[in-house]
Amino acid sequence: MRKKIAVLGSTGSIGTQTLDVVARYPERFEIVALAAGGRIAELAAQAQTFRPRILACAAPGDVEALGQAAPAGTRVLSGGAGLLAAATEAGADVVVAATDGAVAFDAVFAAAGRGTRIAVANKELIVAAGELFVAEAKRSGAEILPVDSEHSALFQCLVGEPRERVAKAIVTASGGPFWEWEPERIRSAAVGDALRHPTWQMGVKNTIDSASMMNKGLEVIEASRLFELEPDKIDVLVHRTSVAHGFVLFTDGNVKAQLAPPDMRLPIGYALAYPDRLPAPYPADTLGALGGALAERATSLVFHRPDLDRFPCLALAYAALRRGGTVPAALSAANEIAVRAFVGGTIRFGEIAEVVGYAIDRTPDEPLSLASLKTADARARSLATAAVEARSALPAK
Amino acid sequence: MRKKIAVLGSTGSIGTQTLDVVARYPERFEIVALAAGGRIAELAAQAQTFRPRILACAAPGDVEALGQAAPAGTRVLSGGAGLLAAATEAGADVVVAATDGAVAFDAVFAAAGRGTRIAVANKELIVAAGELFVAEAKRSGAEILPVDSEHSALFQCLVGEPRERVAKAIVTASGGPFWEWEPERIRSAAVGDALRHPTWQMGVKNTIDSASMMNKGLEVIEASRLFELEPDKIDVLVHRTSVAHGFVLFTDGNVKAQLAPPDMRLPIGYALAYPDRLPAPYPADTLGALGGALAERATSLVFHRPDLDRFPCLALAYAALRRGGTVPAALSAANEIAVRAFVGGTIRFGEIAEVVGYAIDRTPDEPLSLASLKTADARARSLATAAVEARSALPAK
Repeated sequence: MRKKIAVLGSTGSIGTQTLDVVARYPERFEIVALAAGGRIAELAAQAQTFRPRILACAAPGDVEALGQAAPAGTRVLSGGAGLLAAATEAGADVVVAATDGAVAFDAVFAAAGRGTRIAVANKELIVAAGELFVAEAKRSGAEILPVDSEHSALFQCLVGEPRERVAKAIVTASGGPFWEWEPERIRSAAVGDALRHPTWQMGVKNTIDSASMMNKGLEVIEASRLFELEPDKIDVLVHRTSVAHGFVLFTDGNVKAQLAPPDMRLPIGYALAYPDRLPAPYPADTLGALGGALAERATSLVFHRPDLDRFPCLALAYAALRRGGTVPAALSAANEIAVRAFVGGTIRFGEIAEVVGYAIDRTPDEPLSLASLKTADARARSLATAAVEARSALPAK
Repeated sequence: MRKKIAVLGSTGSIGTQTLDVVARYPERFEIVALAAGGRIAELAAQAQTFRPRILACAAPGDVEALGQAAPAGTRVLSGGAGLLAAATEAGADVVVAATDGAVAFDAVFAAAGRGTRIAVANKELIVAAGELFVAEAKRSGAEILPVDSEHSALFQCLVGEPRERVAKAIVTASGGPFWEWEPERIRSAAVGDALRHPTWQMGVKNTIDSASMMNKGLEVIEASRLFELEPDKIDVLVHRTSVAHGFVLFTDGNVKAQLAPPDMRLPIGYALAYPDRLPAPYPADTLGALGGALAERATSLVFHRPDLDRFPCLALAYAALRRGGTVPAALSAANEIAVRAFVGGTIRFGEIAEVVGYAIDRTPDEPLSLASLKTADARARSLATAAVEARSALPAK
């Protein structure tokens, strides 16, 4: 029987790559729901190709046009109700959570509460609400399959293993464009410099987060939530070539690692096919490329310890994780504001960490709930905005 | 409840290290049978410490002395009947097969036939009789846990994974002392040169096999038998530092690897504890050492393709594996004769491969059975002996 897939965020990068994988395996997967915030023409074209039962857009005003473009028999909905229906009413076996921010939290929580597997690409869901989400999935028995290279790596290393025997989980980091730069040069790096990522093609926000290593800090928080590990059981190693994505050290002294070419369709395919694996690599030359990487004469895999002084965002993320509660949510929200200010030319690269630090220092320790998350998110954004304004008001440095 | 362990070959290197692991975890493991061919005083001392139900030696003449030295209530037996009783009558949950050669085949087959887990360190059992042994274990549901670094690595990478999705299994090799030598120098290498192994402390036979890479050829055959993989799905990569021991490439493009310090107590502990893992590393500083290896600034893992021209024994092993039947048994037997002749000064290092090649070229293709194995073994030994004599009769080169 084919697995029924709902994709929330189907027109984004993870969404389109998910459809790419589904299209390649029509005998294994079928699309039952698609949801996207904008790009209505693209969403309509996806609907024509995949013929979902439910199609959801953000704005009620788009429903009529979408309904005309969609195949007959497709229900077209909008807003939060549309996301909720896509996640819970289309009969999905797997919900791919690939929207940004908190927009799909309710829908994804509802699907997890019904025991549906969630393939998670939505970082905020895990960073901000991870403890609540994992608890909900445990209650219902829903599987959570991470859709990013590092957590898919850890998940794969943990398949069939006793979780209480994990001594350490290590995520690798490319180190970004500033890995070899002096601290002072990093502090005043230009936007163009930060956008030169060595191995991955990503959006602007993710690329800046990679340059500051905040992306890795957020991944440390995610690893802690997804695999229920204490902060000091999670390490980061810089690995410039992005061949190895994660390591798990077990208490008995053995270590497992996962390696793969940097192509998101691999963790997506894994999250859909698990516990099976797809019968052929995607893209088709993956095994060849990987065989090459492993098997060439004198192939090297090189690892470095990251330097928290030059990459203070990583230290901030560990601090937020250790405090817990709503602090990780505040970290993520303040970072969004800070990155936007940097890209907009308002603050210097080195001030991203200062703005985030300012916001989390002023975030109280409080219990985590979906309600307290919202407050913390809004508070962190206004704290960060104030910190940005204080800096932009200073004379140019 | 404690796992009951029978150790066949308890005074050898794997045997004593197994007892080392058992002694460290008295709340998890208990020894119910010990068997050894010689070293009667050592065996008696082990019996005093571990108080097995059954104690087995090789020679009937040793039974009386052993009985006097053993704790009251221990049954003391000898020969094939002793091995069989140790493996099947002491109530063992795990039989550690750590004898050399074929002496314990009957006992281990009988235990496997009863569904008892076999922790296999006996290479001949898998190289020569692997197909029969794996079939017997499948029939009864007995688990086969490999006790060597490379196959334990592959086993660990395969835990929880769909076996039909394995695209390639890779075992690593240290490359031995001749890895960087020119072919002509290898051909006439001295015994002392061959005994300088870069990373592992092993016996003479194993160390010579490592220098010729025949050990890796035998491991390719073992991997094929243990994991039921075609010869062309098994590769060897030379990795001088022996940190990574095996890789599995899956059909979906993902790769898993296992890494560990070179200490046999790790795969032994894993084979005993599986599906659990031991709660602490053995030796105590393992995690520290490993953390160091992985996490030092600029730690490198380097891999090279082996060169079959300089290491013809590896090519011979692939050829034997492709032919199947009794040819792998003939390869192993002929290699024993050839290594003994090299260590005794009768043939040159480069002639090991010639002698083995001579023997397997004259081994017929025939169906595998425990009976045909014995014939093939004896035939290969006399063929190899003839080849050695032909070479030693030539004037010194």
